[in-house]
Amino acid sequence: MKAAILAIGSELLGTERLDTNSLRLTKVLERYGVELVGKSVRPDDETAIADELRRFAQEADLVLITGGLGPTADDITRQSLARAFSLGLERNDDLVEALRERFRRFGREMAEVNLQQADVIEGATILANPLGSAVGQRVPVQGDSVRSDSGDATFFLFPGVPRELEGMISDHLEPWLAERSDGSGSETIVFKIAGYGESEIEQQLQPLYDEHGRDGITILASPGEIRLMITARGTADERRRFLEIREASVREAVGHFVFTENADDTLETVVLRELKRRGEMVATAESCTGGLVAERLTRVAGSSSGFAGGVVTYSNELKTQLLGVPAEAIVENGAVSEIVARAMAVGARERLGTDYAISITGIAGPGGGSEEKPVGTVYMALSGPDGTEVFHKVFHGDRHGIRWRTSQHVLEELRRRLVTKPDSGA
Amino acid sequence: MKAAILAIGSELLGTERLDTNSLRLTKVLERYGVELVGKSVRPDDETAIADELRRFAQEADLVLITGGLGPTADDITRQSLARAFSLGLERNDDLVEALRERFRRFGREMAEVNLQQADVIEGATILANPLGSAVGQRVPVQGDSVRSDSGDATFFLFPGVPRELEGMISDHLEPWLAERSDGSGSETIVFKIAGYGESEIEQQLQPLYDEHGRDGITILASPGEIRLMITARGTADERRRFLEIREASVREAVGHFVFTENADDTLETVVLRELKRRGEMVATAESCTGGLVAERLTRVAGSSSGFAGGVVTYSNELKTQLLGVPAEAIVENGAVSEIVARAMAVGARERLGTDYAISITGIAGPGGGSEEKPVGTVYMALSGPDGTEVFHKVFHGDRHGIRWRTSQHVLEELRRRLVTKPDSGA
Repeated sequence: MKAAILAIGSELLGTERLDTNSLRLTKVLERYGVELVGKSVRPDDETAIADELRRFAQEADLVLITGGLGPTADDITRQSLARAFSLGLERNDDLVEALRERFRRFGREMAEVNLQQADVIEGATILANPLGSAVGQRVPVQGDSVRSDSGDATFFLFPGVPRELEGMISDHLEPWLAERSDGSGSETIVFKIAGYGESEIEQQLQPLYDEHGRDGITILASPGEIRLMITARGTADERRRFLEIREASVREAVGHFVFTENADDTLETVVLRELKRRGEMVATAESCTGGLVAERLTRVAGSSSGFAGGVVTYSNELKTQLLGVPAEAIVENGAVSEIVARAMAVGARERLGTDYAISITGIAGPGGGSEEKPVGTVYMALSGPDGTEVFHKVFHGDRHGIRWRTSQHVLEELRRRLVTKPDSGA
Repeated sequence: MKAAILAIGSELLGTERLDTNSLRLTKVLERYGVELVGKSVRPDDETAIADELRRFAQEADLVLITGGLGPTADDITRQSLARAFSLGLERNDDLVEALRERFRRFGREMAEVNLQQADVIEGATILANPLGSAVGQRVPVQGDSVRSDSGDATFFLFPGVPRELEGMISDHLEPWLAERSDGSGSETIVFKIAGYGESEIEQQLQPLYDEHGRDGITILASPGEIRLMITARGTADERRRFLEIREASVREAVGHFVFTENADDTLETVVLRELKRRGEMVATAESCTGGLVAERLTRVAGSSSGFAGGVVTYSNELKTQLLGVPAEAIVENGAVSEIVARAMAVGARERLGTDYAISITGIAGPGGGSEEKPVGTVYMALSGPDGTEVFHKVFHGDRHGIRWRTSQHVLEELRRRLVTKPDSGA
């Protein structure tokens, strides 16, 4: 099956908004092995929309449309589709009543223009939208206007509000695709890796590539993080066979680098889960990251069971005052040094009374670099029941990138310490 | 003039990537008053690309194409455009030599397929790309294949790499548009506001709306922040007249809410600039925001001139230990209370030795709420040379939204204190 996606709305042609709904729709299409032949954004213009729909009908069996189902005068998706294929448009009494009821419930007066939301295209199935007033529609189109080799095309009209669309995809699109599926589709396994470069991972995978080729293996690199994905296509059986071999080989090659195989997990989620499991706490002492590591840990709901608190010692005085870093150590070695990073972590662990402490001191730039310590120079320390370790790195990138990579690196070091050392409480 | 944008690349039809280049292009089109009639994404498929280009030629005078200019076999933009309009494609000797030279410089062997980057479409002007090996092309197309009322259409081929595109827009697209411009275009003034709701701002603007209408005024709301924009269209004179009236009225109505009129400024940039100007320092004491305010302040290069440091006191013990919040105060009032917020700010200001201190204690959720203190309840305090003030809010949204809105609110309170109070050093 071939599909196309059309996002409708003049606001999506401005400089402030992008159509992101198509990503969500694409995910479902991929799962059911449907090929996406194109996507378009069109303004609230009946001719433009009708033209595009007629064209997509020649190219795809399935056309997914988002937006333009609202109650205002520029919501013209319904009439544009009807016009494109010379279909009737009729006001549905049940929908009219539902709209009136909705307005009564909210105690508001209903303007006449709202009633267009009750207009249903000839032959369409109404798709309920529990989260909004705009119902969706599924419209079959037959005849000359569609791709000759298929004989008919199906158009889905969805609201553009992401939250509403989300529910309608599960309620209406997925079951429809599942019914038409021959069981073939695609399936993806994700491995997330922090603190290693793409080339390091590629190198580890070389034996796998040599044996099975690169087919179905994708590496997506973002700063400080890599998503390694194995995508299997075909029938359930074909997918199982494909994954079986590759999954085991990938796990053997890079398994110890992987912090999660769950696409929704972040590094901070994994670290906190591990701390909680062990009944241990961490504290942070940050200079150049300015609280980023603490902020990331506390993004996670329930983080108080693994994170006690931290200090941001941006000035040298505070490093001494809050963490007990000897002032001479700073003068002699500079604030960005192995000895200061170590003293910060040891001080934080002692003063904040936690099992582990992380410290960071570095030069995030753009200023402050020198020949000896260029921008990107970072010292990180991890102090725990079994001692203190210091990590030295020179990260590339801008201020934001250097700070982010630093937080990735130090959280990954903590994670690895937590998963490799026996429980201190044991 | 009417324009259309086509992004080419199968990877832009997957679930991981969006075409964001079009936003950058749209910005320039708007500036020169060019109407965008649609944008599309197409896979690396010659027929699909050629079809779309022929169609855009019927709809637009200017077609901007990004992507598919690379050296690999699936980079087929050049031949697709040539095919769409039956134009020749010829290998350019100078470009071949430049490619060979480029490879020599990097000490690499050049595969034959790279030479397609030297193929130039009949009638095209070559557009230099100082940052990459893919040159762009500007191709005029005449005759029946273009919109009848214009007689010819212009196609720009740009690389898809954002950094390379950026330079080529300024070097090649902007001058071309400027040459064809009758001086008409659009111009936008931005006012950024933090810590107020859309409806509060709308209310303030009502008199302006009543007098001049809403035309050209847009309010874009994101969590904790509003961008109020006045957009003027037309000739330079028309724009000046339009802005003159509205700019003054907007400034009168909401000027004291506005933290910046510079689109690139963030709230933290403005706060730090003001601190630096006054020669004063701030410290932070955060509980539920977990370091977010400190992290935001230190995103700004040179933040050490206004930000000394902070503490993240996630546990009650640390509130007492690091900030001197009396343990009884926490037991009696709860950690999320006016008295604790006040003690945190006063303690941070004293212990960290700064002119100002910000404190935050609240319930970011999803757990931890009660009837008396629901999720979203936040107490913020601002302590300075002229005393300590506490702010109580119940923010809506998820954990992330509550934390973000809190950081916006407290930074805006600090900003307002800084701009309204005379310099303490004076």
